Amino acid sequence: MRTTDEKTGTYSFVAEPFRVDVNGRVTLGALGNHLLNCAGFHAGDRGFGIATMNEENYTWVLSRLAVELDEYPLQYEDFSIRTWVENVYRLFTDRNFAILNKEGKPIGYARSVWAIIDLNTRRPIDLLALHDGNIAGYICEEPCPIEKPSRIRVEATEPVADHTARYSDIDINGHVNSIRYIEHILDLFPMELYQEKRVRRFEMAYVAESYYGEKLMFFRDDAGDNEYHVEVRKETGEVVCRSKVLFV
Amino acid sequence: MRTTDEKTGTYSFVAEPFRVDVNGRVTLGALGNHLLNCAGFHAGDRGFGIATMNEENYTWVLSRLAVELDEYPLQYEDFSIRTWVENVYRLFTDRNFAILNKEGKPIGYARSVWAIIDLNTRRPIDLLALHDGNIAGYICEEPCPIEKPSRIRVEATEPVADHTARYSDIDINGHVNSIRYIEHILDLFPMELYQEKRVRRFEMAYVAESYYGEKLMFFRDDAGDNEYHVEVRKETGEVVCRSKVLFV
Repeated sequence: MRTTDEKTGTYSFVAEPFRVDVNGRVTLGALGNHLLNCAGFHAGDRGFGIATMNEENYTWVLSRLAVELDEYPLQYEDFSIRTWVENVYRLFTDRNFAILNKEGKPIGYARSVWAIIDLNTRRPIDLLALHDGNIAGYICEEPCPIEKPSRIRVEATEPVADHTARYSDIDINGHVNSIRYIEHILDLFPMELYQEKRVRRFEMAYVAESYYGEKLMFFRDDAGDNEYHVEVRKETGEVVCRSKVLFV
Repeated sequence: MRTTDEKTGTYSFVAEPFRVDVNGRVTLGALGNHLLNCAGFHAGDRGFGIATMNEENYTWVLSRLAVELDEYPLQYEDFSIRTWVENVYRLFTDRNFAILNKEGKPIGYARSVWAIIDLNTRRPIDLLALHDGNIAGYICEEPCPIEKPSRIRVEATEPVADHTARYSDIDINGHVNSIRYIEHILDLFPMELYQEKRVRRFEMAYVAESYYGEKLMFFRDDAGDNEYHVEVRKETGEVVCRSKVLFV
């Protein structure tokens, strides 16, 4: 079910049994998937979705994602996601989200940063010039009381795990799917941690694409206070993405 | 969206961009997830869903699944799944599915076999005695023109891959999620095969549960004519599940 006003869009979901974790909470992978779908629905309904971009040989690229949750929807619970555009800059746009429980009360928020690239040059285009800057007409002052994605640095020099990208990791563009990185990063932590704590905040910075058959190496720093910083690198040393995971 | 008559239930979906494969086709993992959700919706709406079973300290257990597709929904396409009960025996019930494209034309079918177990004894209960056998009142003569799940035998003695069950593999019951086995089995095949062919028929026989930290070993026979038989075993040799994958 979708409800939309001019600027925000709200989309309903249910916590599906094969997409909750051992605690019966929606997985961050499933939630991330819903967030990105909502971004697509919202943009598509307003004429700046991926289909329109593709006609001009452009595409949307997710650069950063930060999700912070006080509570997680539990198995079979209804929940919804509201999304809106917070800001449009020349090369990036900020899209925010509120995650609402079945009573419509916010239980979490998310922030994302996107660019549009030209598929020929692979370079970002000027969002303020695109379609007379009409994306900026959707800027909306909804509150999003979580911090912006931060700078992530990882010092570790020995990988804690590696993974060779397989069929199920790859999306229609031939890249490892943005959501799969989230799952692989969460799989670095032992089950005991998930049984005692939950992820309070999760951040991703997507840096470069990776492809089928590439070996991804996971480097992790323990930043103290239940915070971990993770960097995914290829065997060449090229950084693919960085993540910050805060448990409480 | 749900539409139901007395005996069948039909549920609408869209092929989400992060749940399609390199060819833009809905993954069998995502489709399997939708099939099992539809089973849950259909049973729940008719008073024999998992919530009702749990009240009596029973639960539904999936024993077999066979899916056969002529076509796959492509990214962003709408599709729907219709489900109904074909038969109820003393210890098993057969539930079938039709997968319908956006015009409502069948593009595939699935068959599943389920038992209800007593959570204390872990033994199947008599379905014909449960609630005066009212499940049998929903038996329905819809056509399901695909073969029943078959017997699968695997001779291989050397594993082709192994996987240690991690956080993202585990469901609320502490078991490896039924859908994850499908993904891990499909990941045994090289990308080139998916680029040239597609899975025409996929079968799973669920034999035993596996748990966090257990090492799963994948044994595969090439049965010829693009058919492969896969058995997942624990290090102890215990069989977890068996699968048959037919590419065309």
